[in-house]
Amino acid sequence: EPDALLLLDQTRLPAEEHYRRCTSAEDVEDAIRRMQVRGAPAIGIAAAHGLALAMQGARTEDPEAWGATLQRHAARLAGARPTAVNLAWAVRRAAGAAHRALERTGDAAQALATLEAEARAIEAEDRAICEAIGVHGETVIPDGARVLTHCNAGALAVSAWGTALAPIHRMHARGRAVRVFADETRPVLQGARLTAFELQRSGVDVTLITDNMVAHLMARGEIDLVLVGTDRITANGDVVNKIGTLGVAVLARHFGVPFWVACPSSTWDPETAAGTDVAIEERAPEEVTHVGGVAVAPAGIRVRNPAFDVTPAELVTGVITEHGIARPPVGAALEQLLRRTRDPAVA
Amino acid sequence: EPDALLLLDQTRLPAEEHYRRCTSAEDVEDAIRRMQVRGAPAIGIAAAHGLALAMQGARTEDPEAWGATLQRHAARLAGARPTAVNLAWAVRRAAGAAHRALERTGDAAQALATLEAEARAIEAEDRAICEAIGVHGETVIPDGARVLTHCNAGALAVSAWGTALAPIHRMHARGRAVRVFADETRPVLQGARLTAFELQRSGVDVTLITDNMVAHLMARGEIDLVLVGTDRITANGDVVNKIGTLGVAVLARHFGVPFWVACPSSTWDPETAAGTDVAIEERAPEEVTHVGGVAVAPAGIRVRNPAFDVTPAELVTGVITEHGIARPPVGAALEQLLRRTRDPAVA
Repeated sequence: EPDALLLLDQTRLPAEEHYRRCTSAEDVEDAIRRMQVRGAPAIGIAAAHGLALAMQGARTEDPEAWGATLQRHAARLAGARPTAVNLAWAVRRAAGAAHRALERTGDAAQALATLEAEARAIEAEDRAICEAIGVHGETVIPDGARVLTHCNAGALAVSAWGTALAPIHRMHARGRAVRVFADETRPVLQGARLTAFELQRSGVDVTLITDNMVAHLMARGEIDLVLVGTDRITANGDVVNKIGTLGVAVLARHFGVPFWVACPSSTWDPETAAGTDVAIEERAPEEVTHVGGVAVAPAGIRVRNPAFDVTPAELVTGVITEHGIARPPVGAALEQLLRRTRDPAVA
Repeated sequence: EPDALLLLDQTRLPAEEHYRRCTSAEDVEDAIRRMQVRGAPAIGIAAAHGLALAMQGARTEDPEAWGATLQRHAARLAGARPTAVNLAWAVRRAAGAAHRALERTGDAAQALATLEAEARAIEAEDRAICEAIGVHGETVIPDGARVLTHCNAGALAVSAWGTALAPIHRMHARGRAVRVFADETRPVLQGARLTAFELQRSGVDVTLITDNMVAHLMARGEIDLVLVGTDRITANGDVVNKIGTLGVAVLARHFGVPFWVACPSSTWDPETAAGTDVAIEERAPEEVTHVGGVAVAPAGIRVRNPAFDVTPAELVTGVITEHGIARPPVGAALEQLLRRTRDPAVA
């Protein structure tokens, strides 16, 4: 909508398809914090639109004040969740375009138009990126493969076909046989609520398992490859992703199963040397002690709830991006892929 | 009670402490099937008492008919859950004692008294076994160790102090520092509902995590050792235990964390060559798709729900039994421990 951002509230899926109507930067920030919108690219797109929304309400008479307000909203939105690098990237890109327009023209209305266009461009590019990930990713998946995925890196996390699920959606659309096992992904159950929902809707053959069944299935030769998304890849190729990813990667190595990561190249963070340098968000204990409002643990129990973990680069078979596939050493390969194809707008 | 067996309904914990009053073998069998009573030794004890309960109602005029009824109830109870070897063992032991008394005396009333005494003996021995496991197990846990456990092999699963938790309870009782991380253990959440509850009640320092957080904690050096129970150890030392155990064992090996198993020697099944020969019970999909009655997955989704997995002997640091510690090769070591200490009543 012109003066509002409609976000499908992912915390209510699959029971309810409810859209939250956000009319301010605070609304969007709150939706990101509550994980009503989630998935690294989707958060970035939402934040860019949220920034444009916020600035629609700002007075344009004083360009300097407008620029300061822009800066304040951008900082606030970029800080809504600390781990996803796309969030900060998208906000910086949208705000940067607006700031440059402001400097060039001295006209806040002009800068606002640039900001809105940039948010739309980020979304449009994301769709194209997902499709390209699908094209490249499909080439590493054998016919009839049984693919394990963790969390949700599908259409609900991104746009179009998603990232990790893009090759699956593409195979299905082209009539190639593929079967997916979806980890439920405790504590927030994105696998059960979102991946299972999304693939079932699309008609893809999907089987839901609890996170702790992966080893059993791999030991019996029932998984051919792993395909996950990521929130951030550090300079050395370490993969920061939803809690539980590291465990899957170690099991994949132990049982000789390829472990693939799919993501847009904007997920690469060459400024951070290694995964161990990334602050891991610890979330509220209620996510662990309660499921759908029902207590599953005694009151007052101590809880740990890290939202992400770090998979060392040496456990990764390769990274599928919109520009092609980065094989180990992943960090250097990503740098080369990006150098070859760098988009000046992204730099 | 003289004519009923009171079972704490573990499916309602921690919300409710409700006791189910079983007055027939069918009641007890149903409680085992529904996992209202669970944990390998507890199932065995319950089944032995259930058999005695059933036979209290049988007419004792015709010894041959009495023996046939005994056989029928025993077969039914032993088949309530296919994987736990203690269930069949306890039923066979109690029924065997009664059959021998019947043959010796030709008197069904006499055989019933023997059956009741045998059920009580199985329970009393289980208490002594748990204490002995605590004594031996304590020796492998350093002061202040951070111990990860999976599922519930505590007082609620057994009697007295439990098996895997016996060393923890003993350390705590003796004032030795120890800290426990409890996996929640999806799908039935025995770790969240039972282990966390039991340890919190006892005043032990316990932290609840989801199953997929184990790798993250191990990677950060926050786990010093793993201690789990088991439902069956096969001749070659393979460990059959709650789904998720294999994953923990592989992670422990990868991160260099000792992986200990604690169990009564009755858990050893030398008749079965290897873990791959054990039928793995697949349970109802609702355990995965629903938590506390709340749907967490889309309706009609396909589900896998194996209740157990098999940890190969080579991943096991050692097995703690009431007779001492069996180190690799675990199968041979268990055989030797048992030969040295064999109880004719168990043979």
